[in-house]
Amino acid sequence: MSEHTVKAFGEELNHLAAEVARMGGLAEAQVADAIDTVTRRDVQLAQSVIERDAKLDVLEVEIERMAIKMIALRQPFAQDLRRTVSAMKIAGNLERCGDLAKNIAKRGVVLSDSEPITPLTRSIERMGQLVASRLKEVLDAYSAGEVIRADAVWARDDEVDEHYNSIFRELLTYMMGDPRTIQACAHLLFIAKNLERIGDHATNIAEIVHYEITGEDMPTDRPKGNTLRPFDEGDLA
Amino acid sequence: MSEHTVKAFGEELNHLAAEVARMGGLAEAQVADAIDTVTRRDVQLAQSVIERDAKLDVLEVEIERMAIKMIALRQPFAQDLRRTVSAMKIAGNLERCGDLAKNIAKRGVVLSDSEPITPLTRSIERMGQLVASRLKEVLDAYSAGEVIRADAVWARDDEVDEHYNSIFRELLTYMMGDPRTIQACAHLLFIAKNLERIGDHATNIAEIVHYEITGEDMPTDRPKGNTLRPFDEGDLA
Repeated sequence: MSEHTVKAFGEELNHLAAEVARMGGLAEAQVADAIDTVTRRDVQLAQSVIERDAKLDVLEVEIERMAIKMIALRQPFAQDLRRTVSAMKIAGNLERCGDLAKNIAKRGVVLSDSEPITPLTRSIERMGQLVASRLKEVLDAYSAGEVIRADAVWARDDEVDEHYNSIFRELLTYMMGDPRTIQACAHLLFIAKNLERIGDHATNIAEIVHYEITGEDMPTDRPKGNTLRPFDEGDLA
Repeated sequence: MSEHTVKAFGEELNHLAAEVARMGGLAEAQVADAIDTVTRRDVQLAQSVIERDAKLDVLEVEIERMAIKMIALRQPFAQDLRRTVSAMKIAGNLERCGDLAKNIAKRGVVLSDSEPITPLTRSIERMGQLVASRLKEVLDAYSAGEVIRADAVWARDDEVDEHYNSIFRELLTYMMGDPRTIQACAHLLFIAKNLERIGDHATNIAEIVHYEITGEDMPTDRPKGNTLRPFDEGDLA
């Protein structure tokens, strides 16, 4: 490859990574706004979360096409290839975070019609903050190319599960205590599940960043196991 | 490209498609067995579903690496490129179907410890059969390269949502009527949701097959809409 080609490919890679970072910023905002939709019962905000999701879909398609074209025309190998493929895979994970945020916003609209259940909303808010911070942290690790930070996000995978467990139990107790809240609690249950899945995408992204930088898979299975007789909901995640 | 290279690439493409078909067969079996786990309360079957999931993970990684290598070394374009990328994307969807089947099996284990709720299990079984048949149909369309069959799967996307709606309502009614069933019903709710998501992956695969064969995206949005005030659970999918 000539020096000119090498330079042009480096620029293309930087552009690709910048697009992923931009998509990451949007996904973060969608997740944060979706949580606010629920905690503030803000139907207008929900509407804008739902509408803005299309942008993430478009960006994912663009990033994928750009990456495939780069692989076909530039035939990158080693870290260049890993960077190109990573961009495409991270975009896929971010698109799904967007879908989950949209779903949370839709449920926020439904919930705004029923009585607020303040303690539960607080728990959702705390879990939401944790998940949003994991997403932010792993995207920072990606942009900075810092494997230690990505590994740290990966290692704390179980914190989200613990929150989810505790909300699951809280919700069940609430439903049993007051069956009139069952419908609202079912929506909150799915909102908690969606947050747990966004946390899981953050873990996926951490694995992708680790592979991109080191060329190696994570050494062990996720902190989360494959228990056959799960003691609690987190084992089912 | 020499005739020899063309032939070799054609063979590679066939091999790639065959690997995806093999993965599809495994995913179908996992989904069917996961449903049986719940309907027959079969803990041993659940255990084998949980263990076999690793095979799908391995196949996904292999298919992705094979596809990326083909794109880099062969620089395919037009339909050849679409076939290569499609294989990779279908494998991604199948891997997630496998995760969802594994999660259903895990919940099947938990449910086997509580009283059976026969009418609900029947509804889950019917929804499971519908979803499994959609997955089978779209994989057949992929193997046969028949766009009409893929389009037909895509067009019936809302059937699964209708089933899911009806199960959602049934479950809520059951929980309100007998709060002691709340925990079991929460697991059934997630099982129904997982089935709905497997149905959604079948729709994704239909879109991928359509694009692979025609080079065009589906002409319109999915039958499922973006209602701001959803009337029922299906609108939230």
